Amino acid sequence: MRYRMLAAAVLFVLFTSEHVRAQNKTIAERLGYPADSKLLIIHADDLAVAHSVDTASFDALNKNAVTSASIMVPCSWLTEVASYAKEHPDADLGLHLTLTSEWKMYRVGPVSPSDKVASLIDPSGYLWAETVLAARNLKPEEAEREIRAQIERAVALGIHPTHLDSHMGVLFSKPELFAVYVKVAHEYKLPFLAVRIPNAPAQLLAVLSEKDVILDSVAMASPTVHANEWRDFYANVVKNLKPGVAEMIVHLGHDDTELQAVTLDHPDFGSAWRQRDYDFVTSPEFKKALEENHVILVKWKDLKKLVN
Amino acid sequence: MRYRMLAAAVLFVLFTSEHVRAQNKTIAERLGYPADSKLLIIHADDLAVAHSVDTASFDALNKNAVTSASIMVPCSWLTEVASYAKEHPDADLGLHLTLTSEWKMYRVGPVSPSDKVASLIDPSGYLWAETVLAARNLKPEEAEREIRAQIERAVALGIHPTHLDSHMGVLFSKPELFAVYVKVAHEYKLPFLAVRIPNAPAQLLAVLSEKDVILDSVAMASPTVHANEWRDFYANVVKNLKPGVAEMIVHLGHDDTELQAVTLDHPDFGSAWRQRDYDFVTSPEFKKALEENHVILVKWKDLKKLVN
Repeated sequence: MRYRMLAAAVLFVLFTSEHVRAQNKTIAERLGYPADSKLLIIHADDLAVAHSVDTASFDALNKNAVTSASIMVPCSWLTEVASYAKEHPDADLGLHLTLTSEWKMYRVGPVSPSDKVASLIDPSGYLWAETVLAARNLKPEEAEREIRAQIERAVALGIHPTHLDSHMGVLFSKPELFAVYVKVAHEYKLPFLAVRIPNAPAQLLAVLSEKDVILDSVAMASPTVHANEWRDFYANVVKNLKPGVAEMIVHLGHDDTELQAVTLDHPDFGSAWRQRDYDFVTSPEFKKALEENHVILVKWKDLKKLVN
Repeated sequence: MRYRMLAAAVLFVLFTSEHVRAQNKTIAERLGYPADSKLLIIHADDLAVAHSVDTASFDALNKNAVTSASIMVPCSWLTEVASYAKEHPDADLGLHLTLTSEWKMYRVGPVSPSDKVASLIDPSGYLWAETVLAARNLKPEEAEREIRAQIERAVALGIHPTHLDSHMGVLFSKPELFAVYVKVAHEYKLPFLAVRIPNAPAQLLAVLSEKDVILDSVAMASPTVHANEWRDFYANVVKNLKPGVAEMIVHLGHDDTELQAVTLDHPDFGSAWRQRDYDFVTSPEFKKALEENHVILVKWKDLKKLVN
């Protein structure tokens, strides 16, 4: 249910408009590809939340089954991801800025001193469990303090983030939060996840710069996709890609005791879901579909060059 | 190596003297047993550090294979333990006050606002990795703030602690820290782990009250015990129990992928170690040894009645 709300938040707020697009060249051209290329980032979310998620994601990164991934800095396994990052300096790792803690038996708090970001914290002392609660309660200046702290913590551990995005879409849920997200991304000269939508409100567009790279589409399995439709869903995503830059967001993990416990009572984005995502992205079928549809895989670090 | 230092710290500081013992009755008598009874607490440490540790410890508690356990409040699985505590109101659960974060790939920070307990935090932003580093760096007033915060966090999540002890012996490592530990335990009217030693320094004894329950001995497997000597080690502990109150500290877990990752490169107190401890405490052999040696199992909640 939480993630259904997230899906609503993402649909509502991810955006941009022709205004920003009004540059001489498409992103594909700026990257040296033909103007009508179909570029795709295959992106694994939620690194550091669990060892099971880390091992599945590292394996997919190593196999080039995903091009990129992003990290939840407040989680206890961050050091494991930092160690991987040091051993794989070419791995395309961004930060999955985390302002929610959604699981039933496993919770995390902020990186910042908790009394400096009191609006981010629920009555049990952890980050809010749901996007809608976070959006309702958190003060933009405290969200800004926390996302800066998350970036600084990652950098201190030797991670050089290639991009920013937002766990459960919290930073897409209100214009004031989106403004903070873009402002911090600009300061750190990092590309950030944002998706073109028609008729984006002027308030949102006002914070963007001409250099910003806005994706044309994002695809992610949702709870409406049944387990037996998984491969069809992704096959259709690939088949329906249009010229432009798209991101396919996946959630990788092994369906093991740790991840079953983390995702207890939450089949949406649960451990079986993450195993299905892992199985699909590492399948020859997926590789073949990408080839047959002339999809060019790109990374956030490619886009990073465009914003600097 | 870290734990070898812990062992040294424990040997050095756990204590008390005849001064405190000078009451009319032994603890056994105060609990209604004959004066020369051999009372034993079988205690599982480190709950909440990992799901693997939690499930093994819950199982041992449910089987009465251990009598008591204590919880690491700063760890992400605290909510899992709080849920168990609510479903098992008779479970004897204390707090394993945590001022160190010793694992390589999995780290935790304080419960308090980090800028209020800066001396507790290492350069990577987490609690110090080793007892000796924590003891060297942390300010007693900040340790006090943090242990109070850990108690308050546990209580807020519905845990009613029966006792206090100290992860990796940090609170036994210096008289100033021991004083804070005892002071807070007195305020919360909780018994706390401390062990009788001959010739305890007056500085340590000065903080104790007449009501405090001081154990006569503590036994714990150390890295000097080889895997194939495990059962002999514990069999000897049971056989050599003397009249008085003793605690056997065990570290339970399953030797699975999660716990192997938490305890990476650290066989001492690692996942195989914890599996051995689990296998031993749940064995018929252990039960039989306790019976044959006329050991009476007691809980911290029994001792709690004596301090109130």
